[in-house]
Amino acid sequence: MSSKKNPEAGRRRFLRGGAGLGGALVGASLTTGARAEPLTVAPWSKTPGEPVLWHPYGQPSPYEKNVVRRSRGATPIPGANSSMTPLQNLHGIITPTGLVFERHHAGIPQIDPEQHRLAVHGLVARPTIFTMEDLVRLPSVSRIHFLECSGNTGREWKGPGTASLQFSHGLLSCCEWTGVPLSVVLEEVGIKPEGAWILAEGADSASMTRSIPLSKALDDALLVYAQNGERLRPEHGYPLRLFLPGFEGNMSVKWLRRLKVGREPFMTREETSKYTDSMPDGTARQFTFLMETKSVITFPAPDHRLKEKGFYEISGLAWTGRGRIKRVDVSTDGGRSWSVAQLQEPVLDRALTRFRFPWRWDGAPTVLQSRAVDETGYVQPKATQLVEARGVESNYHFNAIQSWRVASDGVITNVQV
Amino acid sequence: MSSKKNPEAGRRRFLRGGAGLGGALVGASLTTGARAEPLTVAPWSKTPGEPVLWHPYGQPSPYEKNVVRRSRGATPIPGANSSMTPLQNLHGIITPTGLVFERHHAGIPQIDPEQHRLAVHGLVARPTIFTMEDLVRLPSVSRIHFLECSGNTGREWKGPGTASLQFSHGLLSCCEWTGVPLSVVLEEVGIKPEGAWILAEGADSASMTRSIPLSKALDDALLVYAQNGERLRPEHGYPLRLFLPGFEGNMSVKWLRRLKVGREPFMTREETSKYTDSMPDGTARQFTFLMETKSVITFPAPDHRLKEKGFYEISGLAWTGRGRIKRVDVSTDGGRSWSVAQLQEPVLDRALTRFRFPWRWDGAPTVLQSRAVDETGYVQPKATQLVEARGVESNYHFNAIQSWRVASDGVITNVQV
Repeated sequence: MSSKKNPEAGRRRFLRGGAGLGGALVGASLTTGARAEPLTVAPWSKTPGEPVLWHPYGQPSPYEKNVVRRSRGATPIPGANSSMTPLQNLHGIITPTGLVFERHHAGIPQIDPEQHRLAVHGLVARPTIFTMEDLVRLPSVSRIHFLECSGNTGREWKGPGTASLQFSHGLLSCCEWTGVPLSVVLEEVGIKPEGAWILAEGADSASMTRSIPLSKALDDALLVYAQNGERLRPEHGYPLRLFLPGFEGNMSVKWLRRLKVGREPFMTREETSKYTDSMPDGTARQFTFLMETKSVITFPAPDHRLKEKGFYEISGLAWTGRGRIKRVDVSTDGGRSWSVAQLQEPVLDRALTRFRFPWRWDGAPTVLQSRAVDETGYVQPKATQLVEARGVESNYHFNAIQSWRVASDGVITNVQV
Repeated sequence: MSSKKNPEAGRRRFLRGGAGLGGALVGASLTTGARAEPLTVAPWSKTPGEPVLWHPYGQPSPYEKNVVRRSRGATPIPGANSSMTPLQNLHGIITPTGLVFERHHAGIPQIDPEQHRLAVHGLVARPTIFTMEDLVRLPSVSRIHFLECSGNTGREWKGPGTASLQFSHGLLSCCEWTGVPLSVVLEEVGIKPEGAWILAEGADSASMTRSIPLSKALDDALLVYAQNGERLRPEHGYPLRLFLPGFEGNMSVKWLRRLKVGREPFMTREETSKYTDSMPDGTARQFTFLMETKSVITFPAPDHRLKEKGFYEISGLAWTGRGRIKRVDVSTDGGRSWSVAQLQEPVLDRALTRFRFPWRWDGAPTVLQSRAVDETGYVQPKATQLVEARGVESNYHFNAIQSWRVASDGVITNVQV
């Protein structure tokens, strides 16, 4: 508005606002904002609303009913499937627990916490069976960390996989996790000198099992009983799960019932025939625990459509299993030029980091990209670099730069450039 | 266990674990942990569980059905009431949105976001009516902040008010809030030089109205549309609320429909006959916006009972409208001696801070207290100091040290010492 009448005022606002707001109004419906008619009084302002404790446990607005987890489709076994987080509808870094993605191998067990036990045995001085009451009495810590399935964006290996952010990147969430450091429990039972690996087993009927290096168990592994302030949800491991910050999601074994200390990795199904990375020469990368540095633009994405040219704030998420995100670069011209995005504080260790970048769309077709750099200096690769190094046979650990093509009609598609 | 056989090992574990775990086992059920019988296989491990997307929007375990918001009781108008957050059941610093306390004056309006408007007028250059689409396109920020009703712990003025943490301190929550800085919108409309205060009006049928100093509006006030990652819930202001970090909760006007810039405070009902602090001389403190430094032990609390002597981790929350918490002291002997508690990182500006303190209960009656100190050096006062300064006629801004008495039978009560 005034930016058109008074460029100086516009520029001052640009400098102070830091996001080109003078320009923001060009072409946006804000230009019609200064209206003559009075503010109307809506019907909901004229009668009392729903009572307090309408929902003793709160629920989303009925107008948000389409913001839910979604699955790619049915599977032969309904409990052996996954559901994705609607990242295109979310803001900030915390994922609401009701929208945290799922991946189960035999469905969601309904566990009575008073009957649940954790057995710790094998190469230990004092084999112990813990009740939930035993565990919750021990010293706890709370940490905000991302959780990502190693299969997230797995369909991008062979080219653009899906025209939806929820289905391409939705096996990703970030929560505040509270639990007992695994090192505390291992200290209680006493690891024997020859102990080097730990088998973690879930109480689901798939007996989900993974081998955990003792070094990780003693470093920062948690026995988690709470998520975003409340006890775990059934689909996330209630009443107890393992949590391994920065490692692939399935290793954070849900419904944890058993920890066995041994000398060697246990070579379970989920680390041999599954969750290994097939290479072009027919071999497989095994024990690819770490989730590599990655980012994605969550607005605008294929799940959205730009109605008109003008100002938009590009927003997205960056994360790394290596620690903290140091920088995110954004390109609005298909990678020809890059600019540094603003990182939302606090930037936390192995948590999602929200980035923002002001953009004025001129209405011409273009490609939007983000590129994350972590504190170790690792730079998120291009898809061509990743495929050159690993081929296209893997279903896991795809962490390349994501490209969104914006067409002149505002339709956004998944491309690789 | 081994701490009894081997004091050195016990002490090493104490030093490494930092929480006296050798001692932790004395009297705890962990001492019976090393069992001879094998780990039994529970029924839920023998059959497939619930399918993926059992709940497209997730819900708590049925075993947690008692963890809900609660109200002190009915009121003449069901929509003019409050519900409290079950702090005694929560962990970490994030409050799950479904458990964030409520305070409404005329119930919860069911607002269609496409029909909702925000009018900004009064002493502005460009009166503007914003749609939600207009607002969400503007640059946003996300911040983790506490929200507390100024009436929280109001029943403690005249002595111990209730034998429940949920009912004494439950008008308190902490979430990640995402919205547009109010300064961005005020810049767009252009505040006239004589503008000094802003009237904020809600779209509920009580037309909740408060006067906001322009300095606060330009400093860190937010027009919030998302909470813990998802859009606001109806009871928290869907689709738009004001948020004033560190100020009393009712000023963060929900269902925000109007902002009017004026020269003086507007002297609305909620800042004259209500939400002012009655003093002994019959006068009232007005515009007591800031929520002062405060803390409370959330475990153990009157909502719990200690079954046996032995190790417990005392845990609680501290917060201040002045910025960051610098230190929390804990006393386990009714204030005769104080020790510094561990603060859970990250310690954020005007967010809840979780503190933890290892404690071994010898079974004797005692009193537990916490005392917060903020970065400005302000020390949370004793109840006697607060009453001496302000009398007992106020219902608001009680921020004294909370004392929990532990009886020999493990029953915990609310006392003032």
